[in-house]
Parts: sequence; C-alpha cells; structure tokens
Amino acid sequence: MEFTCKAFSDRTYKILFEWGGLRRLRAILESEKLNGPYFIITDKNVYKSQHRNLDDALQGADFCYHIVPPGENSKSFKEWRRIQNFLLERGADRRAVVIAFGGGVIGDLAGFSASTYMRGLNLVQIPTTLLSQSDSSIGAKVAINHPEAKNMIGSFYQPRLVISDPSLLQTLPAREFSAGLGEAIKYGVIADPEILEMLRYNIEHVRSFNQEYVTWLISRCIPIKIRVVEEDERETGLRKILNFGHTIGHALEQATGYQLLRHGEAVAWGMLAAGWLAIRRNMWNADEFEKLKLIIVRSGALYPLGALKSRDVIDALKHDKKKTGKSLNFVLPEATGKVTIVRDVPQDEVRAAVGYILKFRH
Amino acid sequence: MEFTCKAFSDRTYKILFEWGGLRRLRAILESEKLNGPYFIITDKNVYKSQHRNLDDALQGADFCYHIVPPGENSKSFKEWRRIQNFLLERGADRRAVVIAFGGGVIGDLAGFSASTYMRGLNLVQIPTTLLSQSDSSIGAKVAINHPEAKNMIGSFYQPRLVISDPSLLQTLPAREFSAGLGEAIKYGVIADPEILEMLRYNIEHVRSFNQEYVTWLISRCIPIKIRVVEEDERETGLRKILNFGHTIGHALEQATGYQLLRHGEAVAWGMLAAGWLAIRRNMWNADEFEKLKLIIVRSGALYPLGALKSRDVIDALKHDKKKTGKSLNFVLPEATGKVTIVRDVPQDEVRAAVGYILKFRH
Repeated sequence: MEFTCKAFSDRTYKILFEWGGLRRLRAILESEKLNGPYFIITDKNVYKSQHRNLDDALQGADFCYHIVPPGENSKSFKEWRRIQNFLLERGADRRAVVIAFGGGVIGDLAGFSASTYMRGLNLVQIPTTLLSQSDSSIGAKVAINHPEAKNMIGSFYQPRLVISDPSLLQTLPAREFSAGLGEAIKYGVIADPEILEMLRYNIEHVRSFNQEYVTWLISRCIPIKIRVVEEDERETGLRKILNFGHTIGHALEQATGYQLLRHGEAVAWGMLAAGWLAIRRNMWNADEFEKLKLIIVRSGALYPLGALKSRDVIDALKHDKKKTGKSLNFVLPEATGKVTIVRDVPQDEVRAAVGYILKFRH
Repeated sequence: MEFTCKAFSDRTYKILFEWGGLRRLRAILESEKLNGPYFIITDKNVYKSQHRNLDDALQGADFCYHIVPPGENSKSFKEWRRIQNFLLERGADRRAVVIAFGGGVIGDLAGFSASTYMRGLNLVQIPTTLLSQSDSSIGAKVAINHPEAKNMIGSFYQPRLVISDPSLLQTLPAREFSAGLGEAIKYGVIADPEILEMLRYNIEHVRSFNQEYVTWLISRCIPIKIRVVEEDERETGLRKILNFGHTIGHALEQATGYQLLRHGEAVAWGMLAAGWLAIRRNMWNADEFEKLKLIIVRSGALYPLGALKSRDVIDALKHDKKKTGKSLNFVLPEATGKVTIVRDVPQDEVRAAVGYILKFRH
C-alpha cells in the first residue's frame, strides 16, 4: 500500500506500507534518489533482533550504525549530541541519509538529529513498532526531552520517506505491542468507530499477531494520521485532536521519570481519564465509555501505575506544551469517532480525573 | 521601507527597514498579532548600549531579557541550553515571542533556540549591526557551532518579522561596522555592481556613518538577499552564491577559534582569496579584482591574521558544510555582479589561495 503525505509544497513524502517491504529497501531508496551513505540510528534491542534484515537489505551500500540504549531516556541532550558527533566524525555531508530504525523514541531522536545537523539531512523512517508504524513515523514531529518536560526541544521536520513493514512487528515483545494498541485505539475514538468495532471482537487475534488483523489495523490508522497532519501540520487547530489521551498521558510519563510506562501505555491511561471527564460533563454516552474501557483493558496497555501520587501528576501537568496561559486544554469525545477541544478544565476536575485512574482496578 | 520575503506558503514575513522604527515596535508587533510575552535574547554589549531604547519601546508590555556574552563563542550548546532553561523557567508557551536583539551571533543563537523550543516559537529579528541588517537577519538560517565546525547544528526557521532600524548602528563600534561592510561588499560582487561603484567613491562617508549613504547601502542589500532566498530557501542551488568569500572565510574563523575575527572580516579575507582564484583561472578581469581589493582594504574589514598557519586553514576546510563528497566548492566571480559555482578546485590551488591572503600586505 502506498500513501502520500502532502506537507509544505516541496516536502511531500511517501509512506510505503508493505509486508516484507524491508527486503526491497535498497531499490526503494534508490528510486527516491537517496543513494547514501546511510547513517542508521537504532537502539540496542532493535539492533539485536533486526539488524541482520537491514544488513541484508543494504548489502553493498555504504552504511553504518549508531546504537543508543533503548527507552525514552535516550531522547536526551546527551544522546542527541553523540549523534551529532557520530555524523561529524563519519564525515556526513548533505548527501547523507539518516535512517531512523526503531520505535517512536528512535524516530524522534534520529529525526531531531537529522533536522538539526547541517540545517537538515535527508531522513528516512523505518518504524519497527506498532505505535510508530500506525502513528509516530508520520507527521513530521521530532523531539528530545528536556529533563523537566517531554518533547520540549524539537521541530517539525518531514522525512523523505517512510517505509513500514509490518513483518518487523513479529519479534516485538508483547508489552511493546500492547502499548502500541493504545495509540491505535485512540484513532478509533477520534475518527473511526470501525477500528473500535474490530478491536471489540478481535483484540485477541490482534494481540496474537494475526497478520490479517494487524495489517488491517495499521492500514486504517495511517490515512487518519495523514489526513489530520495534512490539514494542520503545525498543530494550530485540527491536529490537536491527536492529543486525545495525551494531556494526562504525558503527565504520567513525566511523573514516573519516563521509566515506568511506555508512551502508548500512558496514552491508554490518559484516554481513560479523558473519557471519564467527558462522561462527567455529560458530553458523551456512558455505554460508549464502558465499551472503550473494556477494549483498553483487554489491549493489555494499562500497565500498573504502582505507588504514583496524584500530586506528582498534577505538578507534571504544569509544563504541558498544549496549555496556553494558565488553563489546561483537553481533547474529549462528544461521540465515538468525534472529539472536541475543551479549554479551561478546572483544577478540581483534573484532580478528580487523575484520582479516577489512580484508583482504577480491572 | 517595507519588504516581504515569501518563504513556504504559510511562512511569508515582513522586513521593515525604517530609521527610528524601534520606537514604533509595540504597535508593529501588535499589528502582527505578536502580543507577547516577549523573551529578549541579547548580548552584554548590545544590552548596555541599547536596552533603554528597547525598554521604552516595550513599556507596559510583558517582557524579560536573557543576556549572553558577546562574540561567536556564544553560539554554543551551552548557551543554547541556557536559553531553553530560561524559556522553560519563565513559563514560555506558544504565545511567546522570542526577540533576537543583536548582531548575527544573537540572530543565529536566539533563532535556533526559538526554532527548537516546543517545536518552534514566534521569532522576531531586531538586528543591531550592519551585517545583520543587510544580510543575516533575512533568510531563515539559524545555527549554533559544533566545537569542530561552525554553524554545523542549525535549521531553516523563518522569523515572523524583521525590524531593521539603522539608527541603532550609530553606537556600533567602528570595527563591528567595518566587518559588516564585508558582507555588503559581497552583495556588490555577486549581484549589484552599483554597490561597488558607490563604495569606491564614498566608503569614507559610509564609515563615518553618513545617514544617507548607510541607508542606501542597506536598502540595496536587503532586496538582493530576499530575491536569492525566495528562489532557493533551502540552499539547493542559487542560494549558494551567498557563500562567496565564505569557503575560506569560515575556515579562517574556525582556524582562529572564532576568537580573532568577526564573521564579516573573515568573509572580507575570503573574498580576496576567491577573487585571486578567479583571476588565476582566467575567469574574471584583473582590473576588476584590483578595484575590489581597494574597496576591501579601505573598508577596514581586513583585520590582521596574526601568526595564522596555512596548514590550520586547510585542516579547517575539511569540515566545510558546502562540500559534497571530497571536493570543495567555491563561488567565484565571472563578472562583477555575477558569480558561479566552481566544483572540484584542486587542493594545491586552494593552498595557493590561502598562501596569497596570508602574505597579503596593504
């Protein structure tokens, strides 16, 4: 399947979604005049489980690896600077192609590195997780974290190409896969009730990696993401709907030092909180929320929050990028498949929503 | 005078060039819906000599200063991170307006900071030097330096507005002013022989800050810069002509640790080297080169190179961003007002050109 994402006039890029696509990598790159050298940024886990496939695909080409530790903590100033040094030492010039080979963390880190080296190198995303294939590899957002706030340092930077090969997901650890379901469920709530219908009846098939269901699911998320970011690349309006579940989700990640939760898990918790807020405000149907809850629970994405304190979550919300002035904005469902932005949610309501998820038992 | 620079569709910005324009700052900002808060990045020298004017212009508005040491060494990872912390501590959100108040260094540093904070804050350039008013504040290039290579870390990031008030140049130290003439002379060579004609007969008036000549000179450079960057914002073709004098210029800056020379001074030396190469290659008229030499000498921009060694300059050339593969590209004049890109200039010719300027006496 081939999609196109129209960014600013000269920055349109293709998204190739193809079972086994990685094997055709060299031909695909060359057809886009991306002849290398290739600088592959990946993490230790992905390198271990997947590098042979990539080595084979790039056989004979000029390529090298830079391997970072797995996990959100690699989206740091330190790892970013190491990549700059790596590129400089290896003599990367404007012909260089940076390949982000991994999940959302690698896409963000390698993307921000490519965007800031020599004012921008060619970037190719090869997402290797469910979350990055269905969501984060598309849309040009790249970033690293400030010690005090996630994704605070970043830019909008279009890749030249995204190559999504779902066969890579076969070796994904179960927890990682479930976390990715968090963002996929989000696409159901914000834009496509059929995604939720499918998951309601088949989530076990998806979780046991039935090729047909997994492929259907990703191929359904990609065009939603494309449509939203095409209409609003810089997040001045529509794109904000993608933040459903992210206001409290980001705060959970930050309050737990980016160590406890995967991003998709935090979003899963954040969707519960947002759904609860919508019900409390009589904006949405309670039965629909019950259905959503069941899907989220069965996705396996609700990783236990441990001894997390409400106050720490509330504190973390203070640095939210999406706030304007002093009020917090929330994306809340008004129907299944349709969300709206609610401004100025009072502190005590936010606190109650956080209380709801901290007490949530399933 | 009002100019418009058309960047990608949604990123067009105005350049206001106006004697005394700073006094109207608040009204100008508000007419562009840039209502603040304002985060002003400046250096110690500019702060000392100019902050009262800016304080007056912003009276009653919400603004604060972040002051960095003067000089190229402030374009560092460290100062960039300090600005990120400053913005975060002060609670900058997406309404924030970063004002770059200073010369090229401040424009680059504040611009890169604005471009990378929350994936991009509003940026206003208020250039306070001849170089930044006639050249660097326009064109969206922002960057910091890697310890081993100038401007290696950066991006293309359009300001929302540029406000150039030549009255600010009255307090500029003579050396800074002469350095700025380096880039102005460049515009003569690459695009506008009348600039060189004017300077040939009136450079003393310009250097003694005759309001009429200075205003004419800047107003002549701005539209050239706009025209070039509009046609080729990302420097894939035409924009490269702006690098006349910059190949060896950058190497001189790097070989002297960014301490000895102002950027415009390095460019002045670099233009001598490039002119010499053009003559040696029979590309350009020797009389024209003599005229150019005289203007450069009389501009005061040829700050002595001291004990600089040829080998250090050659080493520094290895990290040039403009190289593709192993060859060095030079921008060389083929007529006064017209330059072309010459690829693959052999090492020994480059060495000879460096030797020429190291031995140059005036």
